[in-house]
Amino acid sequence: MIKKLSTFKHSTSTKYCFNASFKDLTELVDTNNAIFITDKNIYTFHKKKLDQYNTIVLQSAGEKLKTQNVVDELIKALITKKADKTTYLVGIGGGTITDLVGYIAATYMRGIPFGFIPTTLLAMVDASVGGKNGINIDQYKNIIGTTYQPNFVLYDYSFLATLPHSEWINGFAEIIKHACIKNATMFQFLTEHNISFFQKNKKQLAALIKENVLLKLKIVQQDEREKKERLLLNFGHTIGHAIERIYKISHGQAIAIGITIDCILAEKYFNFTQAQKIISLLQQYELPTQFKYNKKEIVDSLKMDKKKMQENIQYILLKKIGIGYIKNIAITDLVKWL
Amino acid sequence: MIKKLSTFKHSTSTKYCFNASFKDLTELVDTNNAIFITDKNIYTFHKKKLDQYNTIVLQSAGEKLKTQNVVDELIKALITKKADKTTYLVGIGGGTITDLVGYIAATYMRGIPFGFIPTTLLAMVDASVGGKNGINIDQYKNIIGTTYQPNFVLYDYSFLATLPHSEWINGFAEIIKHACIKNATMFQFLTEHNISFFQKNKKQLAALIKENVLLKLKIVQQDEREKKERLLLNFGHTIGHAIERIYKISHGQAIAIGITIDCILAEKYFNFTQAQKIISLLQQYELPTQFKYNKKEIVDSLKMDKKKMQENIQYILLKKIGIGYIKNIAITDLVKWL
Repeated sequence: MIKKLSTFKHSTSTKYCFNASFKDLTELVDTNNAIFITDKNIYTFHKKKLDQYNTIVLQSAGEKLKTQNVVDELIKALITKKADKTTYLVGIGGGTITDLVGYIAATYMRGIPFGFIPTTLLAMVDASVGGKNGINIDQYKNIIGTTYQPNFVLYDYSFLATLPHSEWINGFAEIIKHACIKNATMFQFLTEHNISFFQKNKKQLAALIKENVLLKLKIVQQDEREKKERLLLNFGHTIGHAIERIYKISHGQAIAIGITIDCILAEKYFNFTQAQKIISLLQQYELPTQFKYNKKEIVDSLKMDKKKMQENIQYILLKKIGIGYIKNIAITDLVKWL
Repeated sequence: MIKKLSTFKHSTSTKYCFNASFKDLTELVDTNNAIFITDKNIYTFHKKKLDQYNTIVLQSAGEKLKTQNVVDELIKALITKKADKTTYLVGIGGGTITDLVGYIAATYMRGIPFGFIPTTLLAMVDASVGGKNGINIDQYKNIIGTTYQPNFVLYDYSFLATLPHSEWINGFAEIIKHACIKNATMFQFLTEHNISFFQKNKKQLAALIKENVLLKLKIVQQDEREKKERLLLNFGHTIGHAIERIYKISHGQAIAIGITIDCILAEKYFNFTQAQKIISLLQQYELPTQFKYNKKEIVDSLKMDKKKMQENIQYILLKKIGIGYIKNIAITDLVKWL
């Protein structure tokens, strides 16, 4: 009696435009039927570029924007601007903007076309790739969201000229994570350089960004819905997210601490031998590798984290640098080991 | 420089369980890890069935529930109940419940599994099929939503035993619409019977419901994202939705009036000759075919409707009964013709 009748397939294709310039946008979008969404910081620096377009400027910046209230406001603004199913959204900014704009594009009129111009290193190598979006409720990060692919991502590296140094550090946390789980050669290359090298060598920076985008994209294409392969991208993020939530430090810093803890844990219990190499690389890129935390708070937060409300968590560990794997770990064991 | 790099594909399969019984649910879902969502009316009638499960009961019913506030409340309830990515949502009710539960399942933790047990004729033949969900903002119906397919739809016709007569009428508006756009044989069969016949003949009713589900499903499978074929399902809905919005009459009644207007319009301008047959059938199923409306209000509402903020609308007309087609019509022409 119970019969499987229907299979739905849909596909989206995303154009990734490397080494591009903001003005290439006109090749991608009818800018007369596009609405730009950005934050106050980006707008201050790039007023001239943005004022020629229909732009909504959020009057603050950062993670605190990722709320339903801000979404409601943006949607009312879209209605007022008579945005319809053909209207393009263009998100210009860091991870907060990509998360917000992606979510709104996914749900406004059941999905409208959209693209990103990431302006931070973190957004370029991570947040702009893979279609995940989301907003927070109280302490629950990204508890509401969808997976919805952009139509394009345009990489204009000149936006990085105004990036604060702390944001460079932030971006390298995810770059080092990528190297750890998938690319030992990139890891080695990173050990030979530092942030200042990439700030000065535009070509090397461009190549590094592209390599990171393609690395993440390959994982996401294999497993868009995070059933298996995509989970690897959570390396350093389980404990890292808990620390970020509780201590309100930057994502990159929290992830660096998360990676450090995961490496030490892997060394203690799973025969991993390269923890010190990874910790040294994090330090070389000015990331923290020590942090005083309250174990109980971390454990409570872990239990509430959306990925691990059940008794086991799919934890990401390294066999060696460049080879991540998924290990099913009981929360009770993790609590003992911490 | 602009290179297409990535194509994402994903598929979902939905189980449509016809002639099923509420208790077959245990074949479909681990009920220990499921949360049921229903409204006050359904709960009153089916308390016994529902009390054995983890059930959230919305304290009113109907279209007014489709707001962001109700969504926020439900999400907080899911968090409190520690729903995670593996938790199943089961929506039991009419079109409001399927719209709300589908939307929440699509966005909670970036998508969790869900299923429907439709309890009204309208939800059985229409709202439960095709994956569209949505909520309203002010007068904008379904302006926020996604297309997200359920894992199952379970048809237990015994729920119809407590259905008010007005809801039977409502359901037949969509059944007649289906017949008009795709199935002349079904249209003929309907002309030979009436609501009371289907209320008394359970087998014929079951066959009719199944036929309507399969008809809609076939359309949706060809065009999940409503680029072309799926637009046919909007027959009678363009003017119908405007009337529903302005005059707050039931969906079925509004659609019947919309179908009537579209038929007359098609006869006047596009050589359609069977308007009277359709109007008679609507009347036979106790649906209204006359309505005093204010043309200016309708036009204003049309302009605000999400499908037609641009200058042209893709209007659905009939070549003859059983053959719908899409016609690009300028809003200005439509205004003249009304």
